[in-house]
Formats: sequence, C-alpha cells, structure tokens
Amino acid sequence: MKFCSECAQPISQIIPEGDNRVRYVCLSCDTIHYQNPRIVAGTLPTHEGRVLLCKRAIEPRKGYWTLPAGFMENGETTEQGALRETVEEANARVIGLQLYTMIAVPHINQVHIFFHGELADLDFSCGIESLEVKLFEESDIPWKNLAFPTVSSTLRRYFVDRETDINNSKNILPTHVFDISIQDKLKL
Amino acid sequence: MKFCSECAQPISQIIPEGDNRVRYVCLSCDTIHYQNPRIVAGTLPTHEGRVLLCKRAIEPRKGYWTLPAGFMENGETTEQGALRETVEEANARVIGLQLYTMIAVPHINQVHIFFHGELADLDFSCGIESLEVKLFEESDIPWKNLAFPTVSSTLRRYFVDRETDINNSKNILPTHVFDISIQDKLKL
Repeated sequence: MKFCSECAQPISQIIPEGDNRVRYVCLSCDTIHYQNPRIVAGTLPTHEGRVLLCKRAIEPRKGYWTLPAGFMENGETTEQGALRETVEEANARVIGLQLYTMIAVPHINQVHIFFHGELADLDFSCGIESLEVKLFEESDIPWKNLAFPTVSSTLRRYFVDRETDINNSKNILPTHVFDISIQDKLKL
Repeated sequence: MKFCSECAQPISQIIPEGDNRVRYVCLSCDTIHYQNPRIVAGTLPTHEGRVLLCKRAIEPRKGYWTLPAGFMENGETTEQGALRETVEEANARVIGLQLYTMIAVPHINQVHIFFHGELADLDFSCGIESLEVKLFEESDIPWKNLAFPTVSSTLRRYFVDRETDINNSKNILPTHVFDISIQDKLKL
C-alpha cells in the first residue's frame, strides 16, 4: 500500500493514537487502512471412504493436489463459500457439512476452514482451476504431491479419526482447531 | 475505495476477466483490490458457572454488554487474537480454550469466533474499551442490554449446553457453526 484509497495522497506507516500496532495511515484525510487475515473456506468431500481431490491448474502449486477451497467472499457464509469453491473447482455437491478443521496460518495472514461432507452424487468434473478431479482411497493419497500444509494436515487427521470412528461406531467426526507455522511448512 | 493504493489513479468497479464478481480494479496498473470478510475473535470466559461480560466504553453499542472480542490481527492465530482481546478488554486470562461458536454474519462481511475457557484467576478489571467487567449468573445476564446478536446467541447456546452437560456429566461443550442474517439482527 503506497497511496490512500480515499484521497490518493501518499500513505504513512505509524502507530495511531490509542493503538499499539503500526498501521497504514493517511495523514492527509486521517483514514486508517486496517489489514486483517483472510479466510480460505473449503470442503473435505468423501464417498464410501474415498476422498475427492483436485489437481491444481493454476499457481500457486500448479500440478499439486488439493481439497477444493478458496478465499471466502464478502456477503456469504463460511458454508456458502466452501460449497461455492467445491462447485467451482470440482463441479461437485457436498451434503451434511460439519466443521472439521479450522487452521490458522499466521505467517501468511490466513485462516483455513474445512467442512467435512458426503458427495451428493458422483457427477463431478474439472472446474476451470483444476486439471483433474478424482476420488482417492487412503492408500493412494499423493502425500508428496499435496498443494498445501493445511490440506495434508486435514487429510492426516481425517484418516485417523475415521479409523477411531469405525471402531467406536459413533459416526461423528470431531472438530480440530490448530495452527500451522512457517516451521511446519518448511518441514513438509 | 476511490483510488488505487498502488498507483493513486482513480479506481473502477468491473468484473475482471475470468472472474464472476464486480471488484475494485485499477485500469492503470491492473491491480485487483479484493475485499474479504474479517474475523472477530473472542472468548466466553466462565468461572464456577458464571460468565464474564464487559460493558462497552466505545461505539458501536457503547454502554451495552459484550463478551471480550475484537478484530483478529495479521500475524496471529485465532486463539491468540481471542486471548489478546480478552486481556485488552477485561485484563483477564482464560485457559483451556475450546472453539465454541463460529458465526458468519454475511450482511456485515464478518465471521465471529468464540472460544470457551475458564478464567485462570479472578484478577480481572476494565481495559480501556470497557466501563465495567463483571461475572454474571445465568439469571442475571442483561439479555436486553447485550451489544451484539453473536454475543446473545453464544450465551443462549452456552446455558442450554451447560444444562445438558451437567445432566450427561460429559464436561465437553459442542462446537456450534451457524449464521446470523440481517433478519435475525432486526428481531433482537
């Protein structure tokens, strides 16, 4: 940010009065331009124990596999954002959404939210952002070719929970809240 | 948004190529200025069945009671944001955080996230944004003087869940994911 989006004057970086953080501030019109984390919303779509993944057609991480997800838009709910992205990337409909993971990624100012749900039908196909869309058994998950740490950590937890779930016959997945640091990312 | 924050030229509102939504776009330097929902993170601090509320010293809703919460900042996790706001507004420390409610409020482009936790001690006091900070029994909650619909809906669920929880002796609160529409807000 170089100029004020309200009055076009050059922007300053200062700590406003009563605040304790450096902000982008316009000293000409006194507007404070706050910057806040963004939400990435997506789904973990399953069908008879298999998981739907999309091979990315776009950067970042083109050619790597991801769960369908993307930036939540103004005016929608988290579920609406997750379902919209699932249609956009995989032309897939998911039902029975339950919050599964909420993962803060503070070094990139994002919070990733994945809802588990069952595929409503098997009529899925590539959206414009995908090269391939496919159901994977646990043993076939391309662990070394996953696009993002939040995707691999969500999938890892899912297969553990599903095992526990089958043993307990509860049929309810827990909700996981955790963080991914820059160190976790580098380890992957 | 009137001017491009990168090059100070007047901004246009158009649907960029390959997109399906109107965005703020600079036709001079081609920057697309995306706008996304913001996260409000807070806590539901309890002590022996009582709930900590703060009377707001600032607008909006000055003089009304709220759970400690505020905008999540870049570089922090959701829990860190919730704990920071709890210190800022109530000088209170909360332990054993569990995600309790995640509430989309699409008409104001926000997602509110409340973590339940126990007060670590009773050494709380007013922060600069609070006029009063107090523990309330369920029967004393100022229902008609609560600041925000996300606060009242979180508190309502808590007292129901606590009752169920006492009966079941499970000592685990569920996670609730729901939305608040403009209609819900007007009803309050």
